Amino acid sequence: MNFKEELSKYIELINSELQKYVEKKECPERILNESKGYSLLAGGKRLRPILMIVTYSLFKDDIEKCYKNAVAIEMVHTFSLIHDDLPGIDDDDYRRGKLTNHKKYNEATAILAGDSLLNGAYKILIDDIGNTSDIVEKSRKIEALYELSYGIDRMIAGEYIDTEFEGKEISSDYLEYMHENKTGALIKAPVKIGAILAGAQEEDISKLEMYAEKIGLAFQIKDDILSEIGNAEELGKPVGNDRERGKCTYVTKYGLQKAQEMLEQITNEAVDIIKKYNKNSEFLVELALYIKNRNK
Amino acid sequence: MNFKEELSKYIELINSELQKYVEKKECPERILNESKGYSLLAGGKRLRPILMIVTYSLFKDDIEKCYKNAVAIEMVHTFSLIHDDLPGIDDDDYRRGKLTNHKKYNEATAILAGDSLLNGAYKILIDDIGNTSDIVEKSRKIEALYELSYGIDRMIAGEYIDTEFEGKEISSDYLEYMHENKTGALIKAPVKIGAILAGAQEEDISKLEMYAEKIGLAFQIKDDILSEIGNAEELGKPVGNDRERGKCTYVTKYGLQKAQEMLEQITNEAVDIIKKYNKNSEFLVELALYIKNRNK
Repeated sequence: MNFKEELSKYIELINSELQKYVEKKECPERILNESKGYSLLAGGKRLRPILMIVTYSLFKDDIEKCYKNAVAIEMVHTFSLIHDDLPGIDDDDYRRGKLTNHKKYNEATAILAGDSLLNGAYKILIDDIGNTSDIVEKSRKIEALYELSYGIDRMIAGEYIDTEFEGKEISSDYLEYMHENKTGALIKAPVKIGAILAGAQEEDISKLEMYAEKIGLAFQIKDDILSEIGNAEELGKPVGNDRERGKCTYVTKYGLQKAQEMLEQITNEAVDIIKKYNKNSEFLVELALYIKNRNK
Repeated sequence: MNFKEELSKYIELINSELQKYVEKKECPERILNESKGYSLLAGGKRLRPILMIVTYSLFKDDIEKCYKNAVAIEMVHTFSLIHDDLPGIDDDDYRRGKLTNHKKYNEATAILAGDSLLNGAYKILIDDIGNTSDIVEKSRKIEALYELSYGIDRMIAGEYIDTEFEGKEISSDYLEYMHENKTGALIKAPVKIGAILAGAQEEDISKLEMYAEKIGLAFQIKDDILSEIGNAEELGKPVGNDRERGKCTYVTKYGLQKAQEMLEQITNEAVDIIKKYNKNSEFLVELALYIKNRNK
């Protein structure tokens, strides 16, 4: 199976797992549940759950054991997108070629759908921990859940900084700190969680973390590049918004050419780390290249 | 110590515990942390953490063991207030006599402060579970955390129904379901959590749950009454808003007199349950009466 096929297989797997958590039953809050499902199943690269499962698979074969964690991190990611799109934050009408949650439903629903997805992720994983009798496995799951909570905490802080500095000059230190948190934290978290759940050693975890940090940064730089020169149709959202809003991005700060060089270099570093580290890591090598080369 | 003194003592205790979790350090997201602290320490009855600690104390004396859970439930409650006050939901300018979070800061900050408080509550408790070596205690904490996640899930659903039915006629079944979830769930949760953490038996827990359901309903009816005829100055927010907005409340549905009769009856039921149940429950008896008689 080549990379593209394997990637599609993972995406399908995640989508079908996510389906299981969309409540369809008749109840007074049915439309809230529908709106959560709308955003959760609106497509997307599923990068975070894939990173988690693939990292887990470096150590153990029973990948189904981390499906609930994979679902949870995608729910968290979806919550963050719904809230970022709100009129009070980015005020975006489209995401992945579809109306954003508050445009499809309304603002109150979008706020509450986001809240409910964040909380729902915890609910699923705490329930799972409660049902785990093996004491070693239970400890790992608790450690993994702490990593999730830490990653979310950092992601929210990063998003806050992004809103505070809109239209203001920002130092390169701040820009880096913002992205490490806003995007990096929830790309690092699934890698760490996959490794922790599989019982990886400290040493392995720190190598994988370095890889995750690099691809997290690469992901953000690429995002900034696509926001500037991407194809609106492929992206499913308008381009050029960042500059208009006075957002500080790698492109607005360093210019397009320098941003592309940075992307190239950081991707090479990620590939180097993961290649040297583990011979079964071809998929993670390809994934780093995919992040660099994607058009959406 | 009489009830009022004991209540003040608990409020002081909670406030000083909450203080410990307000981050004051210099960092790029400092203002986000400040805004979380602003809402967390804006006063309030601290009903939920007090219910938790007092319930715990029916079974065990080492109440400091549930302080983190008490802090967490107040953080969750504060998150829910910040989001409810947002322009996209209730659009309230004042809460407890102070500007609401989005009025004091801005909408983006308020959305993210709410998100961060919800997530922060989990982060504290998961960290605590990870640091608990006693296996029985650990299990109880996991069970308690699940109750919290369930309560939050129900609270959000109830809040959603409240927004969906604004300006519409609502059946008494729906009104009850809405309040059981919106207010009731996070009043029942701390009582259950206190009992679970203290290692109470199933039988005890279900008696306490019945009490909590009654005071949760009484709390909501009283809220509806105060929203109609309370003193704006004492309440720290305008009155009469519910009716203007076409909100369906116990007062708008049943009229003031009937709502007051319902409040009286449900409080008597709560008092009966808790009196018969435990001879050390004077504080919980007084608390039910306090909920009925409060002016704010």
